Amino acid sequence: MSLGSSVFSTESYFHTQKPPDGLDIKTARMGEFVEHWRGVQGNKVVLVTSGGTTVPLEANTVRFLDNFSAGTRGATSAEYFLSAGYAVIFLHRQHSLRPFSRHYSHSLNPFLDLLSESSGTIAVSPEHTAKLLPILRAYHAAQVKGTLLSIEFQTVNEYLWLLKGVTGVMAPLGRRGMFYLAAAVSDFFLPEDKMAEHKIQSGHGTLSLEMDQVPKVLRPLVQEWTPEGYIVSFKLETEERFLIPKARAALSRYGHQLVIGNDLHRRKYEVVFVERTDGRRKTGVEDIPGGAETPPLEDANEFKETWLRLADLTRRTGNGADGEVEIEELIVNELVNRHDRWIADAES
Amino acid sequence: MSLGSSVFSTESYFHTQKPPDGLDIKTARMGEFVEHWRGVQGNKVVLVTSGGTTVPLEANTVRFLDNFSAGTRGATSAEYFLSAGYAVIFLHRQHSLRPFSRHYSHSLNPFLDLLSESSGTIAVSPEHTAKLLPILRAYHAAQVKGTLLSIEFQTVNEYLWLLKGVTGVMAPLGRRGMFYLAAAVSDFFLPEDKMAEHKIQSGHGTLSLEMDQVPKVLRPLVQEWTPEGYIVSFKLETEERFLIPKARAALSRYGHQLVIGNDLHRRKYEVVFVERTDGRRKTGVEDIPGGAETPPLEDANEFKETWLRLADLTRRTGNGADGEVEIEELIVNELVNRHDRWIADAES
Repeated sequence: MSLGSSVFSTESYFHTQKPPDGLDIKTARMGEFVEHWRGVQGNKVVLVTSGGTTVPLEANTVRFLDNFSAGTRGATSAEYFLSAGYAVIFLHRQHSLRPFSRHYSHSLNPFLDLLSESSGTIAVSPEHTAKLLPILRAYHAAQVKGTLLSIEFQTVNEYLWLLKGVTGVMAPLGRRGMFYLAAAVSDFFLPEDKMAEHKIQSGHGTLSLEMDQVPKVLRPLVQEWTPEGYIVSFKLETEERFLIPKARAALSRYGHQLVIGNDLHRRKYEVVFVERTDGRRKTGVEDIPGGAETPPLEDANEFKETWLRLADLTRRTGNGADGEVEIEELIVNELVNRHDRWIADAES
Repeated sequence: MSLGSSVFSTESYFHTQKPPDGLDIKTARMGEFVEHWRGVQGNKVVLVTSGGTTVPLEANTVRFLDNFSAGTRGATSAEYFLSAGYAVIFLHRQHSLRPFSRHYSHSLNPFLDLLSESSGTIAVSPEHTAKLLPILRAYHAAQVKGTLLSIEFQTVNEYLWLLKGVTGVMAPLGRRGMFYLAAAVSDFFLPEDKMAEHKIQSGHGTLSLEMDQVPKVLRPLVQEWTPEGYIVSFKLETEERFLIPKARAALSRYGHQLVIGNDLHRRKYEVVFVERTDGRRKTGVEDIPGGAETPPLEDANEFKETWLRLADLTRRTGNGADGEVEIEELIVNELVNRHDRWIADAES
């Protein structure tokens, strides 16, 4: 790692990096979905972002930088938001896990193993039916009610443009909109003018790459794009000692309501909610492009932490098998309460 | 890109980079599989490698470099090798496409859409049965006969160690072993001693990375590890003009039998076979660590090219829907013929 000078503000990013193909169509679909559910009395809408973003190293992409994320957190949480009555926009990385079908990954639990043939018809074997039935019913219910809209992204550039677009179309929801930003977004990217046109040829020794920092769009998202939404961001760290300081720093810097901190190795059964003691936003936060993630000096009493943990007995693989409790169920329950208070606060 | 000096030979690579967890167990499983099929009169065994390899940037990996590859070529080819009577070792990237289940990706053709409920039982709807039935039968047949062994990798380091291991256990097959190296292997990697222990922290401007070249293990694989196997490598390029020169260069440099060249944008319906006119290996090729991929001067008449193309009428999405012809069927047909000649050559 080295220090560099070419730092993009959010504004200069969107000014210099081209919008992806299909942006208008996808944004329009999200807009129609929001408009429909805005018209349904009291209905809440959540945006769930999920999966990692890629950073292409070549315009005709063969190589890319990626973030570790199967999309488990997002896909699982989306199911619980649906069962809590939310309309869900599931903005996810292509080929990452999806609500409902996540229970049957091609490697761990291949769906072909569920099936058996009998005189020209194919049925799910009786021993698999009990587990699949509630999943299939919830999947069909979401289809019939139209409560789930899935939109794909691949690159960090697609993600950023789509996030900006969907935040714009969700703004009219006011406090009824929640933003659950679980995607693992790259911190670095290769601007278009530095990108190779074709596959980088090997055979010439080492490869040196210099990447620019992705602008922290959470600030304009909170402070400009959606002044009323309930916003949840995530911090993933591999060293637990960074979790709470970095979560507080993010709250101070961006001004939103909640950071969910998780440690890479314990994220399936333990997370921490970090928020202001009053549960509110902080307005008038200033942008510091490229600045370090250190918080302005703030009283530690301003913040509170709530740990959510699965009990040892229920702590397992975290894929929702056989009535196992998933931590996303606890997370979503807590969030629904906070979101309802946030809505009620405005009305009182 | 810049020139660098730290170039690993295959020998120094395996000397300095630690073997991955689980290597012995996986290699032993492949060894047992090979031993079983070696004992079955005349049976041929193919190793199919598939999917991209990752290059972790951190020891506790959050970020990694990746290669564009869904694993379509490998998963599809494995099915055709199975139906041609081969025993198949499918060495694939975790979560990449797999034989048979590849027809039902979570996004394009979700399997939950195939199912309907009727009085507590779940069946595949009649309109989907006709397509699924032959796939399910072939899947079950491979299970019953035990002709498919799937082994996963994720990082380029795992891939290289597993490749070395499986080549060793396949060597006793002599000419009855085929190596179909369709995985998209990274050209660059970050040696252990340059890797960050924890998540690289952002907030300090740009990120600079310098990566070393992955050794070209194809040379020792051909010249030392399996002196008798039939070896097929792949060249993926984004510029067609590089295809044939680079394929010939690889044959000259590594001495194996066949390179399949494909262009990124046309690979679903057009490939080119590049081989020596006599269809043989070339022995006594010298290692040039880190050398450029330019071939020693060789008579162009030494090589021949065979283009395989899907006719326009059958050229479609290439996912095997509804009786569509897939180019992997043509590829595998051609390979079976060549492999049979290679075996017969030794016996005559």
